[in-house]
Amino acid sequence: MANPELVISSCSSHEEENHCNFNQQKLNFFFMNSCEKFWAQERKPWKLSIQILKIAVVTIQLVLFGLSNQMVVAFKEENTIAFKHLFLKGYMHQMDDTYAVYTQSDVYDQIVFTVNQYLHLYNVFIGNHAYENKDTEQSTMAICQHFYKRGNICPGNDTFDIDPEIETECFFVEPNEPFHTGTPAENKLNLTLDFHRFLTVELQFKLKAINLQTVHHQKLPNCFDFTLTITFDNKAHSERIKISLDNDISIRECKDWHVSRSIQNTHYMMIFDAFIILTCLVSLIFCIRSVIRGLQVQLESKEFSVSDQMEFVNRWYIMTIISDILTVIGSILKMEIQAKSVTSYNVCSILLGTSTMFVWLGVIQYLGFFAKHSLLILTLQAALPNVIRFCCCAAMIYLGYCFCGWIMLGSYHDKFHSLNMVSECLFSLMNGDDFHYGFPETELHTFISECKNLPNSGKYRLEDDPPVSLFCCCKK
Amino acid sequence: MANPELVISSCSSHEEENHCNFNQQKLNFFFMNSCEKFWAQERKPWKLSIQILKIAVVTIQLVLFGLSNQMVVAFKEENTIAFKHLFLKGYMHQMDDTYAVYTQSDVYDQIVFTVNQYLHLYNVFIGNHAYENKDTEQSTMAICQHFYKRGNICPGNDTFDIDPEIETECFFVEPNEPFHTGTPAENKLNLTLDFHRFLTVELQFKLKAINLQTVHHQKLPNCFDFTLTITFDNKAHSERIKISLDNDISIRECKDWHVSRSIQNTHYMMIFDAFIILTCLVSLIFCIRSVIRGLQVQLESKEFSVSDQMEFVNRWYIMTIISDILTVIGSILKMEIQAKSVTSYNVCSILLGTSTMFVWLGVIQYLGFFAKHSLLILTLQAALPNVIRFCCCAAMIYLGYCFCGWIMLGSYHDKFHSLNMVSECLFSLMNGDDFHYGFPETELHTFISECKNLPNSGKYRLEDDPPVSLFCCCKK
Amino acid sequence: MANPELVISSCSSHEEENHCNFNQQKLNFFFMNSCEKFWAQERKPWKLSIQILKIAVVTIQLVLFGLSNQMVVAFKEENTIAFKHLFLKGYMHQMDDTYAVYTQSDVYDQIVFTVNQYLHLYNVFIGNHAYENKDTEQSTMAICQHFYKRGNICPGNDTFDIDPEIETECFFVEPNEPFHTGTPAENKLNLTLDFHRFLTVELQFKLKAINLQTVHHQKLPNCFDFTLTITFDNKAHSERIKISLDNDISIRECKDWHVSRSIQNTHYMMIFDAFIILTCLVSLIFCIRSVIRGLQVQLESKEFSVSDQMEFVNRWYIMTIISDILTVIGSILKMEIQAKSVTSYNVCSILLGTSTMFVWLGVIQYLGFFAKHSLLILTLQAALPNVIRFCCCAAMIYLGYCFCGWIMLGSYHDKFHSLNMVSECLFSLMNGDDFHYGFPETELHTFISECKNLPNSGKYRLEDDPPVSLFCCCKK
Amino acid sequence: MANPELVISSCSSHEEENHCNFNQQKLNFFFMNSCEKFWAQERKPWKLSIQILKIAVVTIQLVLFGLSNQMVVAFKEENTIAFKHLFLKGYMHQMDDTYAVYTQSDVYDQIVFTVNQYLHLYNVFIGNHAYENKDTEQSTMAICQHFYKRGNICPGNDTFDIDPEIETECFFVEPNEPFHTGTPAENKLNLTLDFHRFLTVELQFKLKAINLQTVHHQKLPNCFDFTLTITFDNKAHSERIKISLDNDISIRECKDWHVSRSIQNTHYMMIFDAFIILTCLVSLIFCIRSVIRGLQVQLESKEFSVSDQMEFVNRWYIMTIISDILTVIGSILKMEIQAKSVTSYNVCSILLGTSTMFVWLGVIQYLGFFAKHSLLILTLQAALPNVIRFCCCAAMIYLGYCFCGWIMLGSYHDKFHSLNMVSECLFSLMNGDDFHYGFPETELHTFISECKNLPNSGKYRLEDDPPVSLFCCCKK
Repeated sequence: MANPELVISSCSSHEEENHCNFNQQKLNFFFMNSCEKFWAQERKPWKLSIQILKIAVVTIQLVLFGLSNQMVVAFKEENTIAFKHLFLKGYMHQMDDTYAVYTQSDVYDQIVFTVNQYLHLYNVFIGNHAYENKDTEQSTMAICQHFYKRGNICPGNDTFDIDPEIETECFFVEPNEPFHTGTPAENKLNLTLDFHRFLTVELQFKLKAINLQTVHHQKLPNCFDFTLTITFDNKAHSERIKISLDNDISIRECKDWHVSRSIQNTHYMMIFDAFIILTCLVSLIFCIRSVIRGLQVQLESKEFSVSDQMEFVNRWYIMTIISDILTVIGSILKMEIQAKSVTSYNVCSILLGTSTMFVWLGVIQYLGFFAKHSLLILTLQAALPNVIRFCCCAAMIYLGYCFCGWIMLGSYHDKFHSLNMVSECLFSLMNGDDFHYGFPETELHTFISECKNLPNSGKYRLEDDPPVSLFCCCKK
Repeated sequence: MANPELVISSCSSHEEENHCNFNQQKLNFFFMNSCEKFWAQERKPWKLSIQILKIAVVTIQLVLFGLSNQMVVAFKEENTIAFKHLFLKGYMHQMDDTYAVYTQSDVYDQIVFTVNQYLHLYNVFIGNHAYENKDTEQSTMAICQHFYKRGNICPGNDTFDIDPEIETECFFVEPNEPFHTGTPAENKLNLTLDFHRFLTVELQFKLKAINLQTVHHQKLPNCFDFTLTITFDNKAHSERIKISLDNDISIRECKDWHVSRSIQNTHYMMIFDAFIILTCLVSLIFCIRSVIRGLQVQLESKEFSVSDQMEFVNRWYIMTIISDILTVIGSILKMEIQAKSVTSYNVCSILLGTSTMFVWLGVIQYLGFFAKHSLLILTLQAALPNVIRFCCCAAMIYLGYCFCGWIMLGSYHDKFHSLNMVSECLFSLMNGDDFHYGFPETELHTFISECKNLPNSGKYRLEDDPPVSLFCCCKK
Repeated sequence: MANPELVISSCSSHEEENHCNFNQQKLNFFFMNSCEKFWAQERKPWKLSIQILKIAVVTIQLVLFGLSNQMVVAFKEENTIAFKHLFLKGYMHQMDDTYAVYTQSDVYDQIVFTVNQYLHLYNVFIGNHAYENKDTEQSTMAICQHFYKRGNICPGNDTFDIDPEIETECFFVEPNEPFHTGTPAENKLNLTLDFHRFLTVELQFKLKAINLQTVHHQKLPNCFDFTLTITFDNKAHSERIKISLDNDISIRECKDWHVSRSIQNTHYMMIFDAFIILTCLVSLIFCIRSVIRGLQVQLESKEFSVSDQMEFVNRWYIMTIISDILTVIGSILKMEIQAKSVTSYNVCSILLGTSTMFVWLGVIQYLGFFAKHSLLILTLQAALPNVIRFCCCAAMIYLGYCFCGWIMLGSYHDKFHSLNMVSECLFSLMNGDDFHYGFPETELHTFISECKNLPNSGKYRLEDDPPVSLFCCCKK
Repeated sequence: MANPELVISSCSSHEEENHCNFNQQKLNFFFMNSCEKFWAQERKPWKLSIQILKIAVVTIQLVLFGLSNQMVVAFKEENTIAFKHLFLKGYMHQMDDTYAVYTQSDVYDQIVFTVNQYLHLYNVFIGNHAYENKDTEQSTMAICQHFYKRGNICPGNDTFDIDPEIETECFFVEPNEPFHTGTPAENKLNLTLDFHRFLTVELQFKLKAINLQTVHHQKLPNCFDFTLTITFDNKAHSERIKISLDNDISIRECKDWHVSRSIQNTHYMMIFDAFIILTCLVSLIFCIRSVIRGLQVQLESKEFSVSDQMEFVNRWYIMTIISDILTVIGSILKMEIQAKSVTSYNVCSILLGTSTMFVWLGVIQYLGFFAKHSLLILTLQAALPNVIRFCCCAAMIYLGYCFCGWIMLGSYHDKFHSLNMVSECLFSLMNGDDFHYGFPETELHTFISECKNLPNSGKYRLEDDPPVSLFCCCKK
């Protein structure tokens, strides 16, 4: 960008002497920007107009796509939050990381609670959730436990005999079984866990729902399949069983539907998308033509150095071409998503997102019409090698400290437990985010003396417990 | 500010040669500041005195107005917090964003609780709150539900038949109905919600109160009308019904009142406001006179360039004039508010706030008496175009990243769900506020194993529930 | 500090020409520092030695005093936290700001709870706390309510009739009254609050304790008097009664005591304090002598300008003198505190703290022996006026924004409710602390659906409540 | 690093004049780096290759060691968290700092709860935890209380009579005692605490566990001994007894074990460690040879100044030698840990961590091949004295403020209670971390009015309590 201006100015300063030969004039014109070309030959700025139009339509398309995407994401999340509250006993907001049980009876209670909530779905749930119908049957809940094949663990004697092969045992609960019509499931579930051997228990089941919200926006509602997996993780055998709920979601077109009001604007959207594809193709042709012309000029002018020849192919054109190709592919994908034949939202969002970013970044080239801006770019280019060298040095030191901190402080502080956390922590420190190193700013939730006689205090449990067999720790 | 000084100095440096003609002397004097004029002609700084007086009185007025405003705002907020604790079951401090219910029985419980609290107002409430008396009747609570006209939703079969037209059904509870005199309202409320179809339930009612606190400040207490709306939002049909309480407040003069001690200082306040209006008018006249004189000098001295001619109209005067006009209007409005004829606090506060800000900013001009300060301003003026160009570039890049981040990361992270949040998040990052990107610093509230047998564990509910009809998901 | 060096260097550079007359040599020697004097005349650096000794002993004294102070503060705080847990029903860690009650029954419950805890002190409390014995009687708890003399408030009709004079009614509970020996105080307390009229209720009582912890450090335990005031604040009449606990503490020497092990090191401490006083007096004499000598030299050398003459009185000496005087007074006070004749910890801590700070700041003068350091100081002096001018401008703008923000945003956002908060908020913003303006980072505590049938759900209360009198809002 | 290049350039610039004698050429070659040597004499860069190999293998070793360490640390922590939930009544996540009890009955309840949980280990616990078997007996729990020998404390009369000697009384609970087979331990524990005299109560017991998780990684499981100490701290006698749980862990090889699948890769690991030791020894020999050669050249060239002679011994070699020695010792230690003969993880981690850091920092020397980098280092060297002087001044001021702040504000604000906290707080302020000085950003947990009739409200306790003896505060 800078060299041509140099040519221009050197030329124009000698204008009165007529030293500008034809070749120079041609080059001169080649490196002019839209404004200058308009003043020089009154050539109309078609390319510029197309770009401005493209910015407008691509942004509108992105916003519309983003808004519909946002609705789907919100529906997914709301459902996941609701499932956590409904299927995990005593779950509260944002306690995912610390949600765990610590005693044998807690494990059974939690399982029984989840099974009960599942069985009484139609009485408990608010929303439009239902079991999956396979043929005429309802889908079942699978309770699977994974355990070591053999495990005689006697920590008291420092001895153990283990076969680390993992076996799986499953157990199915069907919603239409008679036992859930009034009495708690507790008595009916014949589930016994061998706590010495078991690694994980998984409760897996499917629920279905329809996102009616889109009807308000003249869009066809989607059908959602939720595959819920509640995992009890005892892999560490550390008295603490972490419980997590995974919600796997798939979106499908509903089979049979009827909506009284007409759902129409899909067609308009399709036409708009087609218009965008057209615009981008025109922009693409313009840019490719300019690039080819640049390469021709480059072939004709061999007298310049290699780095100067690079200047003939405008880097902005390359970016515009990439952006246009991405937009075209993205828009085609989007049309297919709207026609419900594909559901690859993610690929489409990456394509449209990247292309829109490039389109907006491309606006900067028009600010390059002003001379001073180019000076800035030149300075940046000159400083680059030093900056890279500095970054290399810093990276080495950073890596050294990371490894050292991980291995030396890992045993003593939370923030050094894994390499990820060490690097994050050091980056924060460098960034000035966080000085309070060994002083976690935790919110302390103090119930202590207030909650004395809550039902889990252990008192009530004792009467019902069987007599303790003290010397029976070695089980087979 | 800078040019005149240039004139002065160039003039004064050649003084010994008597090159300063009459015109230059006149201009010289014109551009002198109050101090210099005093030393040159012993002219007394009336304008300066008026401005200093204005700063004092305007600030006092603002502080007094702000203090009385603060009291009203505090009363509003305290009431809203109290209503949330009184009408929302199990509400706790700052849980507004997560306050929601998840099961059918919770929805009914919440509605019954609110109705009961409303009916037993005089037994439960501490403050001076009462029902609205229309004629001789008490105001009623309206329970309105909005639902789809028709909705057969069968997620199990992936089918639905819906009429998205929204119907509204209302139901009124009157405080003087006999049924609330001892037994819970539960049995009496004939409210049944069709959870498949309903979108929102709204409980709306009015309460009245008097803010007695102002009596201590020798002010007349105001009468407040609170219009409370509790909304159960099921629009998403996602198992989660968010509950929010809106408190709409209107302030009115009380109809009939008697206070033993005299309420007096309104008159003094009125006089003070009148004095401020007077001061501002005088300042206004002075400034307009100076501006007119400046324009005259400008007309006489055509030999200067356009940008130099701009210097003749002092920009500080313009600001003072705007500030004075705002103060006058604001003060008049304030007097009417005090006379209880108008209640437009907001307009008045914008007027007085802006004018006071200008008055204080105006103090900077007196610091301009020192030469060095002007150098700073000159530098700033020179750097402005580059700064604007840089900002434009940065804005383009920022917008590009915003769109891209929203569409690509929106599905994966909370902070990218909507454009607002993306732009906020990126601004924070630029600002260096927040590095912990994917690591929400949440406070984890762990009740888990402690709260096992709380009444909501689901066990107690089973016996009372009707038998589950498994294949009845398609309701009309 | 800079000028003398100038003299020295200008002198020493011309040394070979013998231009340094006697006066210059004298001045030269006067401005030499300890090191240079030692090299010039082998004068031993007594003054320096005294200062170094002083730094050591003053710091040791401060640390010892600080450690004993720390223990007292910790005792005070631990007690206040414990009292909050013991006398406030349902109080939890760090909820002081939100601790409030919202219903009539809550108010009575809270009062009854506090009275009960007070009456059963010896059964409930762990520590060594007791009632105050006046003569042979136990101290009583005073329950005082403040209310308007007359108040007929009818918000329903927008009418009120009020006498804003405030009356006080007190009521005493004695620990040795018979009624607290088994049954709850609820029935016995004949307290009825007129919620329309009452402003505050205050529960005030005294407790005594002994801080035994000091015995381990060979110090005599102190006797503490705690005056506890629990205030129910209904001044706003906004349905929300804030409850706060104030703990006023006075420390006294115990009357009669016996400790088996000897409490001894007070004497050693006294001797150490005396030694510090001696050291400071010596340092004081040295410094005063130097200052007087400086003034004499100043009188002799009239040829210098006023600002140069200022240099003759070393500012470091002034600081050292102030520091010495403070240390002497502080040490005497400390000795009296140790002898238990005075208890003015605060004055003593201010004296010793300031003096130690000056002593440490004084260390910087010895770093001034190096020439470059003085250059830094010279630069700072030159830049000062501009810095001050900038600060003035910034202050004006800051004030303008503060007033404007307070009055215009005060109604809409928490952080603009009072002038303090606005100025704090703006300072934070300038400081780059806080961008999340309208987005309070609150921790949301969600119990919602979990805590359904807690006893306060309102159901249980209804049966016992008297029938509601609907038209009785106008009470006298 | 800079001087040699100076020599080279000065030499090469005069090359045409053949002024470079043999000595200069030799020095020239001596100061060449690997690349230059390769171009000059085609000498193969053995040293460089060894270093690159070392970086790779040392990093792999560290990562493997770190990962196995991480697993042990995670097991320790998970167990500690679980023990806190299991042995501390009502404990919740991250409340360690505020976990305390306030009433007499709470103390007893807490002790009884812990004893019960311990006795019912096999019924309550999930993981593989067991009592320690001494001979054929189970290990016992020791309940020890520490109290003053004599203590008659009468705060009511301001008198006390105390013997500060501390006595200890212990009491043992054996898991196989008959009394825990069904009834709560409450009645059986004959523990009475004299709250006036007791200082601390300690519950100490041992548990054993086996970390089975390592089986999945083909490693032999370790046996863990947990020594748990629950401390009730009443030293302050301030109504607040803090409770803390300490978990002391020792790792031992299990006595007798049998695993069905083969545990094998220890041998491969051993071979890899041996290979690292070999690599480091080769690198060590290379470096020592280079250092010796450098010293020889130094001896031969006496014409240079002392600081120039320092240049002959490359500081990078010194660092590499230290790093190699640390790696060799660390690797030997690691092999012994793997052979289960030593368990000094900490020493090993310090050795390996430091050596890896040095190895990575050593990479920077190769970036020194570029000339500009050395300029940076030269600049840093020149600026060092000034930087140190500035740091000294800042440290003095910092210390002064610390002492002053501690003593003067210590009584009024949490952040100034101890010297540590003051210095931390001031550092934060300097760092710009924290402006909100007196405004703790606490999360307020408000239960207040919600939790009215919880069992600890004090009502239920009254009937069972013995009549209060009011004048019995003087106990022996």
